[in-house]
Amino acid sequence: MYKVYGDYRSGNCYKIKLMLHLLGLPYAWQAVDILSGDTQTEAFLAKNPNGKIPVLELEDGTCLWESNAILNFLADGSRFLPSEPRLRTQVLQWQFFEQYSHEPYIAVARFIQLYQGLPAERQHEYEKLQKRGYKALDVMEQQLSRTPYLVGEQFSIADIALYAYTHVADEGGFDLVRYPAIQAWIQRVQSQPGYIGMFD
Amino acid sequence: MYKVYGDYRSGNCYKIKLMLHLLGLPYAWQAVDILSGDTQTEAFLAKNPNGKIPVLELEDGTCLWESNAILNFLADGSRFLPSEPRLRTQVLQWQFFEQYSHEPYIAVARFIQLYQGLPAERQHEYEKLQKRGYKALDVMEQQLSRTPYLVGEQFSIADIALYAYTHVADEGGFDLVRYPAIQAWIQRVQSQPGYIGMFD
Repeated sequence: MYKVYGDYRSGNCYKIKLMLHLLGLPYAWQAVDILSGDTQTEAFLAKNPNGKIPVLELEDGTCLWESNAILNFLADGSRFLPSEPRLRTQVLQWQFFEQYSHEPYIAVARFIQLYQGLPAERQHEYEKLQKRGYKALDVMEQQLSRTPYLVGEQFSIADIALYAYTHVADEGGFDLVRYPAIQAWIQRVQSQPGYIGMFD
Repeated sequence: MYKVYGDYRSGNCYKIKLMLHLLGLPYAWQAVDILSGDTQTEAFLAKNPNGKIPVLELEDGTCLWESNAILNFLADGSRFLPSEPRLRTQVLQWQFFEQYSHEPYIAVARFIQLYQGLPAERQHEYEKLQKRGYKALDVMEQQLSRTPYLVGEQFSIADIALYAYTHVADEGGFDLVRYPAIQAWIQRVQSQPGYIGMFD
């Protein structure tokens, strides 16, 4: 059985939880508290030298890290990851987009607002994050105006990767009202058989 | 024949050039100047809605973006990308590490120092980038002290991804003298048949 080291509040960890539920796979969840320094202990760094969650531990003790790499591992051979080379590349394309152009703005703005209560000393940074986060949402809206999912007609791990922080973007001050295609896509993701919410 | 939209000075673009040379594949290179706004034109945004380079254009006009996604596309089925699921996941793991925990510090510090001449108003940011960039190098050093390449015994696209900005990290103020394993690895990458330098 898989063991997941994670925090329920983290979108990156939620990606793994959602994937496991959609696949109907059993798993054990080991709560890790970043704010208490749980990811910087010697024992945890032996699992992920980069000191981040989530980590997926396999039965033989092998540890895999980086949420999107783990998604590819879990989805390989399933309907959630196309085998056709261009489609598979497009899935990765959106996942790298998520980690470089989306998460550093939308997830960090959410962290500042939700967990830190938007302190004055981070106000300026928060405003910059807003601008760049909206740019990422614009790019998603453009694709989702043309196709029901990020990669063509099929729900894939590209959608799981982007859904995780997009569906709680309001907690980082992002107003999704101006994004009808993203809103409709959120509904489509939530209607997937086996779907589980972030705090369920 | 593949067409690459890129800038020779960009490590992200260099990844694609190096991959194509290692594979011995012919390609056309279309120079794109970010600083002149070439990536924000309507024509370019039709190729990559996120307005970034590199972009790989296939013969039928399909455009693929995100450097690491393109590496996976080009390397699929070759000796540069293992097919065994765990190894393949580890390749992705290092590529996502590169885009989230390495490039935003090492490449951005290099940009500020090399292209902007380290202006006073970015000094504070630059110092923060140094600290986090060194943390990424520490993680790499740890792995490369144990294995000759980032994923076990074989050179892979994980190495190409991390090599691109690591081997020019000095241009961002990073001193590699304290990283003997990274230095030896840089030599091993440079000895690959078909290797081409960033400015060759």
